[in-house]
Order: sequence, then C-alpha cells, then structure tokens
Amino acid sequence: MVNQVQQVDGCWQSSKGDSSGASNSSGESSKESSRCSTPVVDSDRSDRLREKIRKRIDSGDQWFSLEFFPPRTTSGAVNLISRFDRMGSGGPLFVDITWHPAGDPGSDKETSSMMIASTAVNYCGLESVLHLTCCNQNKEKITGYLAKAKHLGLKNIMALRGVGDDWENEEGGFSYAIDLVRHIRSEFDEYFDICVAGYPTGHPEAKSYEQDLRHLKEKVDAGADFVITQLFFRADTFLTFLDDCRAIGITCPILPGIFPIQGYQSLRQLVKLSKLEVPEEITKVIEPIKDNDAAIRNYGIHQAVRMCRVLLESGKVPGLHFYTLNREVATMEVLRQLGLWIEDPRRPLPWAVSANPKRKVEDVRPIFWASRPKSYIYRTQDWDEFPNGRWGNSSSPAFGELNDYYLFYLKSKSSKEALLQMWGEELKNEESVFTVFTCYITAQPNQNGQKVMCLPWNDEPLASETNFLKDELEKVNRRGILTINSQPNINGKPSTDPVVGWGPPGGYVFQKAYLEFFTSSENVTALLKVLKKYEPRVNYHIVNVHGRNMTNAHEMQPNAVTWGIFAGREIVQPTVVDPVSFMYWKDEAFALWIEQWGKLYEDESPSRMIIKYIHDNYFLVNLVDNDFPLKNCLWQVIDDMFELLHAPPELLSDETALE
Amino acid sequence: MVNQVQQVDGCWQSSKGDSSGASNSSGESSKESSRCSTPVVDSDRSDRLREKIRKRIDSGDQWFSLEFFPPRTTSGAVNLISRFDRMGSGGPLFVDITWHPAGDPGSDKETSSMMIASTAVNYCGLESVLHLTCCNQNKEKITGYLAKAKHLGLKNIMALRGVGDDWENEEGGFSYAIDLVRHIRSEFDEYFDICVAGYPTGHPEAKSYEQDLRHLKEKVDAGADFVITQLFFRADTFLTFLDDCRAIGITCPILPGIFPIQGYQSLRQLVKLSKLEVPEEITKVIEPIKDNDAAIRNYGIHQAVRMCRVLLESGKVPGLHFYTLNREVATMEVLRQLGLWIEDPRRPLPWAVSANPKRKVEDVRPIFWASRPKSYIYRTQDWDEFPNGRWGNSSSPAFGELNDYYLFYLKSKSSKEALLQMWGEELKNEESVFTVFTCYITAQPNQNGQKVMCLPWNDEPLASETNFLKDELEKVNRRGILTINSQPNINGKPSTDPVVGWGPPGGYVFQKAYLEFFTSSENVTALLKVLKKYEPRVNYHIVNVHGRNMTNAHEMQPNAVTWGIFAGREIVQPTVVDPVSFMYWKDEAFALWIEQWGKLYEDESPSRMIIKYIHDNYFLVNLVDNDFPLKNCLWQVIDDMFELLHAPPELLSDETALE
Repeated sequence: MVNQVQQVDGCWQSSKGDSSGASNSSGESSKESSRCSTPVVDSDRSDRLREKIRKRIDSGDQWFSLEFFPPRTTSGAVNLISRFDRMGSGGPLFVDITWHPAGDPGSDKETSSMMIASTAVNYCGLESVLHLTCCNQNKEKITGYLAKAKHLGLKNIMALRGVGDDWENEEGGFSYAIDLVRHIRSEFDEYFDICVAGYPTGHPEAKSYEQDLRHLKEKVDAGADFVITQLFFRADTFLTFLDDCRAIGITCPILPGIFPIQGYQSLRQLVKLSKLEVPEEITKVIEPIKDNDAAIRNYGIHQAVRMCRVLLESGKVPGLHFYTLNREVATMEVLRQLGLWIEDPRRPLPWAVSANPKRKVEDVRPIFWASRPKSYIYRTQDWDEFPNGRWGNSSSPAFGELNDYYLFYLKSKSSKEALLQMWGEELKNEESVFTVFTCYITAQPNQNGQKVMCLPWNDEPLASETNFLKDELEKVNRRGILTINSQPNINGKPSTDPVVGWGPPGGYVFQKAYLEFFTSSENVTALLKVLKKYEPRVNYHIVNVHGRNMTNAHEMQPNAVTWGIFAGREIVQPTVVDPVSFMYWKDEAFALWIEQWGKLYEDESPSRMIIKYIHDNYFLVNLVDNDFPLKNCLWQVIDDMFELLHAPPELLSDETALE
Repeated sequence: MVNQVQQVDGCWQSSKGDSSGASNSSGESSKESSRCSTPVVDSDRSDRLREKIRKRIDSGDQWFSLEFFPPRTTSGAVNLISRFDRMGSGGPLFVDITWHPAGDPGSDKETSSMMIASTAVNYCGLESVLHLTCCNQNKEKITGYLAKAKHLGLKNIMALRGVGDDWENEEGGFSYAIDLVRHIRSEFDEYFDICVAGYPTGHPEAKSYEQDLRHLKEKVDAGADFVITQLFFRADTFLTFLDDCRAIGITCPILPGIFPIQGYQSLRQLVKLSKLEVPEEITKVIEPIKDNDAAIRNYGIHQAVRMCRVLLESGKVPGLHFYTLNREVATMEVLRQLGLWIEDPRRPLPWAVSANPKRKVEDVRPIFWASRPKSYIYRTQDWDEFPNGRWGNSSSPAFGELNDYYLFYLKSKSSKEALLQMWGEELKNEESVFTVFTCYITAQPNQNGQKVMCLPWNDEPLASETNFLKDELEKVNRRGILTINSQPNINGKPSTDPVVGWGPPGGYVFQKAYLEFFTSSENVTALLKVLKKYEPRVNYHIVNVHGRNMTNAHEMQPNAVTWGIFAGREIVQPTVVDPVSFMYWKDEAFALWIEQWGKLYEDESPSRMIIKYIHDNYFLVNLVDNDFPLKNCLWQVIDDMFELLHAPPELLSDETALE
C-alpha cells in the first residue's frame, strides 16, 4: 500500500475514509483553487448575491439592505452618490434601485435607474439590484435593458410587473412578473440573480391572499432566487405570510420590507399607492402629532425598531430590507439601535473595492488615485484584465483619457459658489493658494470664516489616517509644499486596527511612508540636492506639466507601499507607487488646477493667472521612505530642503539648477 | 504648452532637455521594464557572462574564476559536485570545465565534461564555461555537442583547438580554434559567449610570439568575447603580453591563468604538457624541498599570492582565473589572502538560484525541498515556465517523478558503510531511530562514537539558521517528533543579516516559523485535538504515505513563509508552503525512508522492518505559525500534544482517533 494515492483531477483523496471529524478536510479543494492567480483575501467578494445570502443564512449573520429611487435632477444624482458612499460604509449586503418608467429608466442619463445602479456598483462598490418592470414593454426592449445591465456589470434584477393607469397588454409583451422571470432565465440563463416581490397581505389586484401566494410560488419556481416583501406594519403580518409561503413550498429566502415612518404626508402617499391599511394603533398615535415632523420621525424609528426586533428574534428572518425613501437619518438610526449598522466596517483592502464582477480579481491599485477612486475606475473601465496581486502583471496598462472633469460621478459635491468661498473669491499671490491648502489640512476657517472642506484633488475632508500627519502637513503646506496625498509608515499593525487595518482579522498590515505634493521649481532644485543624501532610502518621482521627469527609480519597477500578511496566504500588496501610471496621474493632477480651480475665475483675471502660473511652473513630487520600521524621514527631507534654500547661495550650485 | 508630453514607445521624454546633471534620469526606462512580470531582486542574475564581466570591469570589482576537470569515476563526480557547492560559496564569477576527448566528453555519462558542466549550472547554480576542442572532430559532431550544451542550459564555450599526438585534419573538420569560433557564431549566432586561450609566452607550436599574437587577434575578431591565458610564473610575463595584445588592437577582457604550485610532480607534468619553462628562481626554491609536499604547497601559495598582488595592483587585471587541479586548499588560501574569497556571500534569494537561463525568472519555491534543492531542480527540469513572484502564478504545476533515488547529483556523499555507522548497524526499535535524529540535531556522537552528519532528508549538517532552534529540536526528536525541516520566525531583520539575510542591502526580511516532522499516528491523534486551540494561528498539513490528508487550509492557497521588503520594489516572497506540491513532496519524503535507510539492511531483517513500519504508519506533518511577530508557538503546540497524551484517557475521545 505504498504511495497508493488516488489523484482525481489534481485533487488527492485518501484511500481510507476520513473518520477524524469536521475539523479535517481531506482534499476537497481542487488544484484549480490552489493555483489561483491571486491570493483571495475576501472570498465573499467573488460570490454572487444568492451565494452571499446563503452564506449569511448558514452562519446566522443577520444583515440589512437598502432601497433607493433614482433622483429627478443631476444635483440630486450627485447627492445620492455621496449618500451611497455614506450608507455603504454601514455594511449593507446590497442596495436596490427602483425602475422609474417615466424617467427614461434605461437611458444613459445621469438620473436614469440604469445609470444610478451602474454607479452604485462600479463607483461605490455596492452590490446592487436593479428593478425592472415589464408592463407596457415589448420583449426586445426588455432584452435590450438586460443586455445593457449585464454590460455595465449589474448582476441582479428585481423582476416586477409594474403599475400603470393605462394597464393593457402590449403585443408580444408581458402580462405578469413571472413572464419577466422566465424571459430573463431563457435569454440570460443563470447570469442574473433574480428577486421578486411578495405581498404579506396579498397583492391588491389578486383575487385572494391564497391565489397571490400561489402566484408567488410560480414566480419562484420560474427561477427567482429570493423574495422581498411589500412594506407592512405588524411583525405578525410578515411572520404569518412567511409560514404560509413555507407551507406551500416556497423555500427561497424571503426578506421583510421595512418602512420606517418618516412623515405624515409620505406615509399617506405610500398607503394610497400601495392600497395598504394603516393599523389603528398607529393612526391613533400619529394623527395627534401629524404636524410635528420630528415627533413622527421619532415614533417611526421607535415603531420600526420594535417590529424589527420581533422579526429578528423569531429566528425566521435572515435580514431586513429597508425602504429608505432616499433618506438617511431614520434608517441609520433604526439600524444602529438594532446593532446591524457596522460602525467600523472591515475593509477587505485599503481601497474601496468595485462591485463590478469584471473587477473582482482586482487587488492592486496605484496610490495616486487614493482620493479619486472614481476617476481611477472610470479611466480603467475598459481594461479586460486587472492587475492581480502584482501591478507588474497588468497586461492592460493603457489608461483612458480623462477629458471631462465634470462627469457626474466625479463632480464635486460643492457648488461653484461654495468652492469660491472655500478657495477664495480672489487670489492675491501664490501664498493665497498655500493658505487654502493649510486651511484644508487644519480644518480651520479661512479669512472668510469658511472651512475648506475639499480641494480639487480631495473631495472629502482629511482621512483619519492622514490626521496622524496633520501637524507636519500643516507646517509644510504653509511654506508651499502643497500636499495632495500622503500616508504614514506602519510597521505591522493588526489587520483589525480601526484606522489603518484591512483584510481578514489576525493579519498584520504594513505601509511605507508616502508624500505627494506640488511645489515650485526653486524648491525642487534644492530638494534634488538634498535627496542625494537619502539614497537609496528615499525613492522619488518629480515631474512637471510638460512631462519633464526626474527619478532615482531607474528600474522603473512598482514600489509596494501597502501590504498585508495573513494566515495561510501569499503576501497581499494592494497599493503601489508605479512609475508608469504616475505619468497618467500627473496629467490629471495638473489639469485639476485649471479645470476645478482656475476656471472658477474670469479668463485673464489675476486669480486665474496665479493658478495658471502654478500649473505651468510647479512640479508634482512623490516621495517614498523605504525604511518602514524607522521614523518617517520625509519631514526631515523637507526640512533639509528649506535649510538648503536659506543657506549661502554657493551651496545651490548651477549644476542642479532647473532653469 | 499644457500636457505636451512626447510619448515614444511608452517611454516619456521631456519636451525640454534635461540639464540637471547625472543624478536624474528622464524617462530612459521603457514601459516594458516597468511592467516586468517579476520584481527582479538581483538584476545581475539575468545578465549573460560577458555582461557580468563588463559590469565588474566598469565597477572595478575584481573577481576570480575556477577551472576544474571532469573526474574519472562516479564517486569522483559526487565529490566534485560537493566541491562545487563549497567553492561556489566563495563567490567565483564562473567556473570552467575542461573537455576530455578521451573521456567521452559529450555523453550522458556522469563523468563526462558535458554532464559535469550541466550539473554545475543546473544543480549548483554556477555560471559555467564548457571547454570544447575541435581537433579530430567533424562539423556535425561539434554542432551536436553545441546543440546539446544549449539544450542543457549552458551559455558559454571555451573554444580550443585541443592537442593530440595524432594531429591531422579531419575531412570537413577544423584546423584551429578560430574555425571553431567561426562555426559557433555561424551556427548559433550570439547564443553562446565564447572564450579563447591566450599564450603569454606564445603557443609552443607558433612560429613566433608575434605570429601567435596575430592568431589571438584573429580569434577575437572572429567573435570571441574574452581571453583566458595559459599559466605563467612571473607577473611581468602576463603584463607584457597584455600590453602587446592591446598594442595590436585586442580590446576584449584578458584574464590571467593562475597556477598555484601544489606539488612537485604535478608541476613537472604540467610543464611537460604545456612546454613551459619554470624560471630559475622557482626551481631554486623547490628542488631542495621536492619531497616535502606541505612545504611545496606553502611555497606555491606564497608565490601565487605575490604574483597575483602584482597583477591586481597593476590596475590592468580585472579578475584572476585559477587552475585548481580539482583541489580546494591552495586556491582558497590564495583567494583568502588576496581578499577575493567572499566569506559571507550575499544571497539573492534564501535558496541557491540555478544558473540555467531558463530558470532565471524563478523566484519562489516550496519550502519542502529546502534541504534537497537538487531534487527539486531535477523534478521541475521539464517546466517551461517557473513561478515568478507568486507561487500561484505557476502554470506548470506537475512535478516529475523521482524514481531513481541514486541519481548521481542526489547521491549521498557518504558510503553505505559510513551511513550504517551513523544510522546504526542494527536498529532495536523505533526509539533507535529517534536517537539517530537526536544525534543529528545535537551533532553529538552516537553509541558507536560516530557523529551523525546527515539524514536521508538532509545530506548536510544542520544549517546555521536551524541552530537557533537546536535545543527545542533536540527535545522533541528525543520524544519521536522526527524533524526534517524547520525555520524560526523572523520579524524584519536587515537583509544583510549574516544568517537569515538575503537580497539587496537595505531591505528587511521576514519569516513565519515552520516545522516539518514525521510522527506516529498516536501523536497525530492528540496533535489534531490540540491544534483546534490554535485556530487560525497555526496552519497544518498532515498526511500519511497512503495520501490520507488532513489540513485546516481549506482554500488550499499557498502560504508565504519567507518574504522580503526592499527599496523601490514589490514584495519578494521566495518560499511558500504550498498544499499541492506538499503531496508530491510527501511521496519523496516517505520513499527516502526505504530507499536511503531501509535498504541499508537485509530484506526482512528486524532493522529493515522497523524502518518499514515507520514508513507505513507514521504521518508527515507540517506546521506554520502565522503570527510571525510573536514568540513561535509551535513548541507549545508539541508540548500540549505530549501533555494531552499523558492526560487521563477520556480526554482523547474516539471522535478524533485515527484508528
């Protein structure tokens, strides 16, 4: 019996049975998975929604999901996207976007259902379900919508009949949601996960509650993966419905739709539309306070929390689906009280992962776009492959052009007026610009008493990690080292660290200190002299808008500046300083001076000319301190530079002068 | 002038000239090199010999090289290979292997010039030059030799005419070395680097010194890359020759051939063969001491050192070539006195890199073969691609069979008799085997007073790194934890650390603690219970000879256990615990019990049966402690296991029993 190993498709199986209990696996994994090209940090990430739901049910890990509707205006879309970012941070399992037949829902308009769902997936990294209604639609049109959704990276459809006053069958069209479910399965096989609607009190148009249950069973049998219910006001309503569903053989997950009452008018409207009755115990409370919005919202939160507790404690409800009405406060409060809102979400990687299935192997990005991830995603959206594990492996290095700096998902949340108040109605000189950067770093009001909440390169206030460096950053920005990106060095902090941690628990994360800034050519001349003292500890790339490039990274290899060590895995190195992509980034970084700042001012105005001068003459510098276990030396480099600048002139020899 | 960047083949060039001095490079690197698929730690490694020579000359870094001749017997070959390993550790730039026309030099015999050179390159990682003589050979035969050399990964040829008593031109053959140089260039273009011989006192058959110089010029003009000279006895002889070569326009590197006098007879023989005259100042010294070998050797060392000093100090000699006569002592002593022997060579990676050009991108290996690298190379010799940077990227995971455990480059340096003295003429029980392992670890004599210098899995004494763990290893081996591989955890030591360092200076190296051992199924039953307490800190793979496999690495991903962080690079992770290759290793590891140990004893003898029992019943276990910054917990795991074994029996429940 020597070496009697049965090898089946590269997978070893014991020639005896394994009787040693659940803790041992005997060769269940295939060679395929061992030879995967990327060390998957978060295996959940590559799962489709129905698998994620299944795993959560198996582990008993209760979740929530959030429903949004598409906004009417472009500025509403910009607001909704930042709401996605904020509410996404609480850890929803998915979001869903309703289908507005009146709002050109399948178009490329910034406010269409299709584009909002695509933005949620691609730019906000949210697993998303796109609603689709089939009434008044022919099959070709529906197929077109589905094909477009697939192309955009959407993987989940909520299949609905939809309602309309002019309800009639279109020739070659659909009568019921079940027709849409069948159509999706016949045209797209298993590509999409399908959700259907359940009605805890029966569909208003159904002959009876029982008939409606049978319809739901048929929809599930036709291929739906899970059910989300219409809203209801009593936990019992849902629990009875759930039992009835199970009794007739509906076995898939059924998620209760939760509607926290947020106002008297919105409740009345919704009730009218959905033909639901509000129970007396609720009307009795809210009628007397109908003009007190705050009181009604507080009651709504209270009522939703109480109902949700009953649902969760029943042991029959794996997760809760919230009708947010595009508002944050009430839903977040309910979730916080239920303990479902994740205050400190685990980050699978240090940057927000896109939910597009095409990008699921993506696990390394250049550091440059750290504050503009949506721009990075936009400029790499046509890549067929993403670097996995190692930037060097990217086979599609060409970045797309970024000509339109006003793309709606890149747009600043602030209006032109707000930007002028923050960045100055009128600039007097370069020092005025230094002051704007300094105010942004310190979060102190500027001379107008206005806090500088963003810069062209950072649409959000300073990251908590960067706060570690705040004092040093303030000092150098005052002196014209205009910082736009930085990270501290980290020598093996736990992967669960609330500020710098990422990846599965039990690991260790590391960083090399990084500093990126614009500065004058005079400063660069001195800096280059100083940097010779820091060879080979500090790597630098220095470039101006004309592409004049100075570096000591002669082999032009990417430098890993963030990495993590985890149990049973290869090293994960998700952030690099990559010399090639830096040249694409510098085009964007320099252009932002003009596009987002200079253009706030009249052509030829002194303010505009100051920005243009900086754009034309400053250099963009990045520095990496490779000695991550030691004290970050980059501040000393800057100090040395200023010291040299104030030294007797002969020390700054002609040899290294830039002009 | 906004964004006016000229992009030429993915390489940016400034639109102004770069006037800022030598420290700045403006886009000299191509996109190609930035997107390289592997973070090259040692760029030297991918250079061909003539480039290495050129770089050393440019940097003024003087080197040495070593000449060997093929041995007559198989045991001589085994000895020569371990000499390669020992002398290779001193850092020769290359070795060369002479061509023995009488010894079937191009055959597959273990003692052929071809196979010795191939072994030096492939198994010992030495850059090697194969001699080739052309007299009495037809072109087809020579082409065949060259094609075979190329196939084996040899890149350098020393092109010689060769000598023979029956000197005559073969039909369609070659008359002179220059014909061979031309033939190599015409048939193999630039594939090979070519070396030719120079004669400081003129070739004995040449009409004159001047005519011989002209011949040398012709050989170089025909395509030779560098010259090695015949031996000589006075530095002036070489330096005059060198000046004369330069004067007639020979510009390539010319390396002096150094012959440390090692004995009276060998000197006489060589002098006769090469038709050289020994200068009077030498004969005057050695004639009186010709019967005193030690005195002659000492004089030889003294004389060689003095001559080499003159050569090196002339500033005209970039490196020294030594005629070793396959002996170590004299050459090593000369090199030590000259300061050329590198006592602590920098390791580009923690394992010895193969010099086969096909393997130059190889930079990750499974830890299992750490003590049997030649076996690993043999079993992967047919791979077309090697994993680079990440084990997961390997596209050729199939390992070759290892059926012949007596392949000459895998053979133990010890005779059967020596092995029996170390491992026991007669084994009484399993504990006899434990004792052998313990003696190996402690380097203490066994009951026969014999030191155990090797085990079937380790042909060398304990590595200095493993010495860190010696006390713990001794303790567990005494109790039947038969360790065959281990490494301590390392949390960021400098890459220049003399024991655990590797890679370029200025970096930091890390390791996870690793322990691999054979042990009884009783121990494994307890161990599995204990390991539950160490989830997920400790990863384990436990397998018996029948392939019964238990692991907690459910995703079957490789676990990086050695990695390094360097300036301006991605993370380098050269050693992994890979679940797939572990199954190939276990076949080899179990077979070594029988092949190398059991077969020392008579069939059916009690000693043989004890080894067979272990082979059939023991498990091979590997453990990784993922928490590299903490104190290695693997010893505690073993302690806990023994504690459990001695606990009341009910604690060892049936659930986890293996039988």
